[in-house]
Amino acid sequence: MTDSVTAEFETCLNEIADQVTVVLDRLIAPADGPEAQLMRAMRYAALATGKRLRPFYVLHLGKMFEAPETALMRTAAALECVHTYSLIHDDLPCMDDDDLRRGQPTVHKQFDEATAVLAGDALLTLAFEILAHRDTHSDGHIRCKLVEKLARASGAQGMVGGQMIDMLAGDIRQDLNSITRMQRLKTGALISYAGEAACILGGAGDAERQAIQGFTHDLGLAYQISDDLLDIEGDTETLGKETQKDEDAGKANFVSVLGVDGAKQRVRLLAAQAKDHLAIFRNRAYLLLQSVDFILDRRK
Amino acid sequence: MTDSVTAEFETCLNEIADQVTVVLDRLIAPADGPEAQLMRAMRYAALATGKRLRPFYVLHLGKMFEAPETALMRTAAALECVHTYSLIHDDLPCMDDDDLRRGQPTVHKQFDEATAVLAGDALLTLAFEILAHRDTHSDGHIRCKLVEKLARASGAQGMVGGQMIDMLAGDIRQDLNSITRMQRLKTGALISYAGEAACILGGAGDAERQAIQGFTHDLGLAYQISDDLLDIEGDTETLGKETQKDEDAGKANFVSVLGVDGAKQRVRLLAAQAKDHLAIFRNRAYLLLQSVDFILDRRK
Repeated sequence: MTDSVTAEFETCLNEIADQVTVVLDRLIAPADGPEAQLMRAMRYAALATGKRLRPFYVLHLGKMFEAPETALMRTAAALECVHTYSLIHDDLPCMDDDDLRRGQPTVHKQFDEATAVLAGDALLTLAFEILAHRDTHSDGHIRCKLVEKLARASGAQGMVGGQMIDMLAGDIRQDLNSITRMQRLKTGALISYAGEAACILGGAGDAERQAIQGFTHDLGLAYQISDDLLDIEGDTETLGKETQKDEDAGKANFVSVLGVDGAKQRVRLLAAQAKDHLAIFRNRAYLLLQSVDFILDRRK
Repeated sequence: MTDSVTAEFETCLNEIADQVTVVLDRLIAPADGPEAQLMRAMRYAALATGKRLRPFYVLHLGKMFEAPETALMRTAAALECVHTYSLIHDDLPCMDDDDLRRGQPTVHKQFDEATAVLAGDALLTLAFEILAHRDTHSDGHIRCKLVEKLARASGAQGMVGGQMIDMLAGDIRQDLNSITRMQRLKTGALISYAGEAACILGGAGDAERQAIQGFTHDLGLAYQISDDLLDIEGDTETLGKETQKDEDAGKANFVSVLGVDGAKQRVRLLAAQAKDHLAIFRNRAYLLLQSVDFILDRRK
């Protein structure tokens, strides 16, 4: 994989990151009252530099179906609110107890634990407010579908369920199947939501929907395995977060179960599968294909 | 106020509490997988005996407009999910650090802090899933309105904002105005939502909507002041939660600012005002009027 192969994708990813940050800046208004600290904490977390991969997938999967741009952008912002809330709560002392996130102190370090809990709560709530608002789409049924699917992806049967399993992972024996299921819930569900939302907004047909489900499924796993590899091989400065967390916590992950070489092989296999799913979209999918190469080659 | 005046209301409140518990029992299904602890914690908190006042108001305000019963009941259940999540998070050691709630150990005492954070997150998320689901109402626009208004009432501009102010209250000077604003956000916003939801589902006209807004506004404040009085005058066993929390935390509340007699007078005034707002509904509002007497006379 050479740098030039994914250069166009990276430019596009950076552009989208900027756009999403502008939208979030508008949606999370600062406040004057005594509650101002809450909005400061929400903005601190949500406007921090992130890759904004989930927004990229909402926007670029949606663009294949010529879905309306405002709807895609607001949905992307809502999804990023949920992702950001999950990072704030996962970083709490009673969870993963992390000091560093996106290259800056975590919210409970910068503010305090109560503010971190509340900022997470408020960002989660805001996500549903954004989706349900008529500015997102003129059709109420479509907005409700966006809300319902996001709730399912991020709730007890999705992301929060996955985080619960992760919290208990030190106490239960984990094999490849159980780690895969945990990660499908914890990180996969939100990545799959990006595809679902694009299909809802773009009016995708059954074959297209299935292709995108397959793509986001394999992509989510590939991304998580590459995350586990970076946890071993990356450094804190580049990643903007602490490394070797799983090993320190005595938790199994894809690398501890598959080994480094096995994990790398698995990422390549999943990446190839992910690309195969996109074949039906032909040229329309070329930036999405590049995004897979980016994940194969990611250093942060 | 004699016991017989509110007897019919109390019977009705108990019936609704039972019905809401049945609905929540169905909506929060237990799980088999390693995430089962999350669902146990959600059920532990949500199915515990509570007054279910918010559901009562959704149902009985909505019934005045002959709003569809299933829609009212699902909305009431969603609102109770949000209320329950807020209790779980507010009880956390980094917030109010409470050991007892609804007569049983708080979720972080019964399980652990991580489980409490996640159970709260999942209940909040579930509320929006319930509202957005087609079973709640056939009209997508109505469901979206329910979602959007609940998000506004419970987010940074509503309940969570109020809790942020409450967390900082030990550090800032509080007068009657600032305490009133804090409580309007922290507890008033969800009570007002009960009225908003009833109006949305019942297709209330402008005059009716305004009357209900006035009613829930005054009711919410009366309820909170009576809560502050119980914090001083009630006992832990009857209330099922710890008392004299504000005084211990050095926080001002309605009683510390108005005095016991002043606070009692204010509750009576607000209760009378609340009833006046309902005059336009004549006989249809008689159980709602009883509910106000119940709050005037509450012992838990």
